[in-house]
Formats: sequence, C-alpha cells, structure tokens
Amino acid sequence: MKEVPVGNNIDSAWTGPERVVLITSVDRLGKSNIITIGWVMRTNMDPPVLAIGLSKGSYSCANISRTGEFVMGIPGLDMAAAAIYCGTHSGAAVDKFKKAGLTAVAAKVVRPPLIEECLCNLECKVIATQEVHAHRVFFGEVVAHWSSEKQQRSLLLVGDESGYETVHAEAGFRLGAVANS
Amino acid sequence: MKEVPVGNNIDSAWTGPERVVLITSVDRLGKSNIITIGWVMRTNMDPPVLAIGLSKGSYSCANISRTGEFVMGIPGLDMAAAAIYCGTHSGAAVDKFKKAGLTAVAAKVVRPPLIEECLCNLECKVIATQEVHAHRVFFGEVVAHWSSEKQQRSLLLVGDESGYETVHAEAGFRLGAVANS
Repeated sequence: MKEVPVGNNIDSAWTGPERVVLITSVDRLGKSNIITIGWVMRTNMDPPVLAIGLSKGSYSCANISRTGEFVMGIPGLDMAAAAIYCGTHSGAAVDKFKKAGLTAVAAKVVRPPLIEECLCNLECKVIATQEVHAHRVFFGEVVAHWSSEKQQRSLLLVGDESGYETVHAEAGFRLGAVANS
Repeated sequence: MKEVPVGNNIDSAWTGPERVVLITSVDRLGKSNIITIGWVMRTNMDPPVLAIGLSKGSYSCANISRTGEFVMGIPGLDMAAAAIYCGTHSGAAVDKFKKAGLTAVAAKVVRPPLIEECLCNLECKVIATQEVHAHRVFFGEVVAHWSSEKQQRSLLLVGDESGYETVHAEAGFRLGAVANS
C-alpha cells in the first residue's frame, strides 16, 4: 500500500455506482424547489431515518433549514435529464418543476411536494442537523411513504466501465443503471 | 402513487447496489476490531469527511465513541467472505482479523490499523457524532489515505436481478459486483 495525498478528491477510492435522489423543499413563500444529490444514506430502520448532505450555499439547504421538512424522491431511468437539470441549476432563479418537466403532487404530512414521476417518495421531518465544513447534513425521519406503479431501474451515478448502461451524460455527470445482462 | 405504511423496511424504495466498507477500531486495551457496514456517505470534499452509521450496541461503536478514531477500508471482490464474517460476529468475543484472515498494518496518524487486503484505507478522526435512535453516526475527517496496487472491482451489496455477479451469499446478504458485460 502506498500513501497518497489527502485532498478534495477521494474518487479513486470512492468508485461508482452512487445512488441519485431528488429532494423537494419549499421556500418562505411556499414555492417548491428540487435538488438532485448523491450524498444520502439510511441511518435507522424503525423509525426509518435518512441522512442527506447538501451544500450550505444551496437554495434547498436554506429551505430545509427554515422549514425542517423535505421529500426524497427516487428517480427511475427515464428521469436522467431532469435529474441533471435539477442538480445543475439554482431554484433561486428558476422553477425547476416547470423547467425539468416534473409534476408536483401535494404531500400528506409535509409542505414540500411529492414528485409524481418518481418511483417512490418519502416525506421526511428533520430530527437533527450537522454542519460539516461547506455542507449541512439533515437527518430526516420518514413520516409518509408513497410508491409508484412504475417499474423501472433506479437511476445511478455510474462510471464508464463495462457493466453500466449510460442513459444521459452532461456537465461531467454520467447517469444510468446497472446494465441488464 | 399509492401510500404504503411507514415501517422498518423501506427496501422497496432503497434498491441495490449499496457500497460495503470495513471499519477498524481499537478497544481500551488496544485490541483491534473490524465491522462491515453499508451505511456510509461522503459529507464534505475538502477536507474529505465521511459519515458512517453503526448500531449503538456494537463493539465498534463503543470503541469509536471512546477513541474518536477509525479506519475505513474499501474491500475488493476477493474479500466477500471476510466482509460477511466481520459483519455478522462481535469483536467482543473473537479476533476478527485472525478469524477473517485479514492483515492489520499500523496506520500513520490513528491507532486503529489499516487492512492490508483492502483496495484503499482511509484514516479518520471523528469531528462530530449524531444519535439516531438505535444508531450512532460518526463524521470522520480523512487524515491519511492509502492506496493498494490491487486492481479489483469494489465489493457491493447486490440484488438478485440481472446485471450483478454474486460472489458470496450468506446470512441473508448477497455480496458481489456489477457484472462485466
């Protein structure tokens, strides 16, 4: 084993695939936003709690910090272009639901909307937050769970090696799924 | 979309693949332990910070809570059986390095050892913790980074659908990789 410098890039260690999810939130006027993220993990089974990591400078981070609520939507393969769009634009300037062609549906418990096109939507209430340098991690307890009839493979951030099917590559991101062999 | 009950199982939403990592720690006597986990995410780029989620009842959780240090080893495909072993036994009772046939190598900055067989080892110092019901999340800043010459695909928790190569299935876990197509 050889030592390598510690830097802002541990990608050599952190090879794909990585899960991709869409997070909805609302601002102080009630306007909905969507952000695409890859930093997400489960942190408890019952009740289910999910952790998500967002840049502190993002509009979604400000929204969730203020309201304590978000919805996690799990996108299928057909949402790759929408996911890239929502991950590379700021909701401060645009209506991402409209621009990405996604449909907001009222949630049951929280104010941020579900995304109709997603395979699954998890309504979450923030039970804790943690500052990590330029990022904030929100721990969200799942308070309602919605499932779609859609049958699709989940969207992943993939590499360019064999075994993956790339469906959309843009802005340095390659989205796709594990290839059906 | 239809609502489904919120429960201890969001697996229908949280389909594979999931990253698998090995975490080393030391107890109060300096004895090393290894635990295999799937709850891990990046939470900052520079400096690199990783979050890991452990059951509060685990020996490793007690070790890391006491010392504030851990090493994250990223296993390759040939370590599937060792990963299952380390994830299904308690270090309170056995020497998991010995039982799993893994080699401890002294780290540079922290007391927990590197795992020689891993593709990569990241020495981490805990900068924050968060209680989440039955689990504790540790935020570890990477303070040293070691890379192996070994060329292998990373080990993943995989499903039984096509596109994956299963190399070891035991105790309800299926470990493998994205298949080379």
